[in-house]
Amino acid sequence: MRLLFIHADEMSFEARQKTKIAEEEPPIKEAEVEDCLVVFAAVQEADEENPKAIAEAAVEEIEDVAGELKADRIVLYPYAHLADDLASPDVAVEVLKRMEGLLKERGYEVVRAPFGWYKAFRLACKGHPLSELSRTVTPEAAEEAEEEKIES
Amino acid sequence: MRLLFIHADEMSFEARQKTKIAEEEPPIKEAEVEDCLVVFAAVQEADEENPKAIAEAAVEEIEDVAGELKADRIVLYPYAHLADDLASPDVAVEVLKRMEGLLKERGYEVVRAPFGWYKAFRLACKGHPLSELSRTVTPEAAEEAEEEKIES
Ligand SMILES: [Mg+2]
Repeated sequence: MRLLFIHADEMSFEARQKTKIAEEEPPIKEAEVEDCLVVFAAVQEADEENPKAIAEAAVEEIEDVAGELKADRIVLYPYAHLADDLASPDVAVEVLKRMEGLLKERGYEVVRAPFGWYKAFRLACKGHPLSELSRTVTPEAAEEAEEEKIES
Repeated sequence: MRLLFIHADEMSFEARQKTKIAEEEPPIKEAEVEDCLVVFAAVQEADEENPKAIAEAAVEEIEDVAGELKADRIVLYPYAHLADDLASPDVAVEVLKRMEGLLKERGYEVVRAPFGWYKAFRLACKGHPLSELSRTVTPEAAEEAEEEKIES
C-alpha cells in the first residue's frame, strides 16, 4: 500500500459523480475538516494476499506519523494515482473500511472519503518539514509484524 | 517520470524552508494561481540517461492533457512522493527547467515551484471526471518519440 501523509490546515471534499467502481453506499459525500492528517492511500495488488495484515500495518504507520504531529483527526482519502498496480475495488474498500475501524477504536476522529467517486477537494498543506511524508507498506512487512504480535 | 495532473480552481504555494537539496536560486518563492493545470512531477533515476528526451516527452503529455482541458496556465510542481526511485537533484532540476522552457515556447503561462524547499500550498481540485489524471513517461518511449521526429 502506498501512503501519502499531508498535515493540513484544511481538507474539504465533495463527491460529484460515480465512476464504474464507486463504493455503492458512500460513508459520506462531503466534508470540511480543519487541522487534520490527510492520509492518501492506494491499496495495491500485492495487498490482496493479506488485507487484514495490511490494514493493521498501515494503521501502525498512520499512528507513528499522527503521534509525531500530535494529530488526532484523520481524513482517509483513497488515491489510486499513488500506485500503478492497484488492488481490486472490493479489496481496496475492505482494507480502507478496516483501517477506518481500527483508527476509531484507537481514539482518532476519522473521516473516510468515498472510494471510486470523482471528487472536488480543497487541501491546505501546512508546509512545515514534517507536513508531507510518504510510506509504502508491504505484505511481507505486515506479516512479520503479525508474527511478532502472535509471539509476544 | 511520474506525472500527476490536477485541473485546479486554485494552486497557491509559499516556500518556507530549504532542504539539503534545495534549488539555490529558486525561480520564485510564492505564487497564487487560479484556473490552472497543476503538474506534479517526480523525475526518476531511469530518466538520467536522456534528460532532454524525457523533458520533451513529458511536455507532449502535458500538452495532450492541457489541450483536452483547454488549459493554458500550468503550475509545474516537483513532487518526490510520486516515485521511490528518484533522479539526482541536479538532473531533476535540469529536466524541470527544460520542461518550463519548452512549455513557454509553446505558448503556455508557466509557474515553476522551487525544487527542494518545504512549501505550504493550497490546492482546489475542480472535481470533474478529467480533473485528476496520472501518467508515467519512460526513457524508452521518449527515445522512440525522438527517433520518430528525426525520421519525419
Ligand atoms: Mg501526444
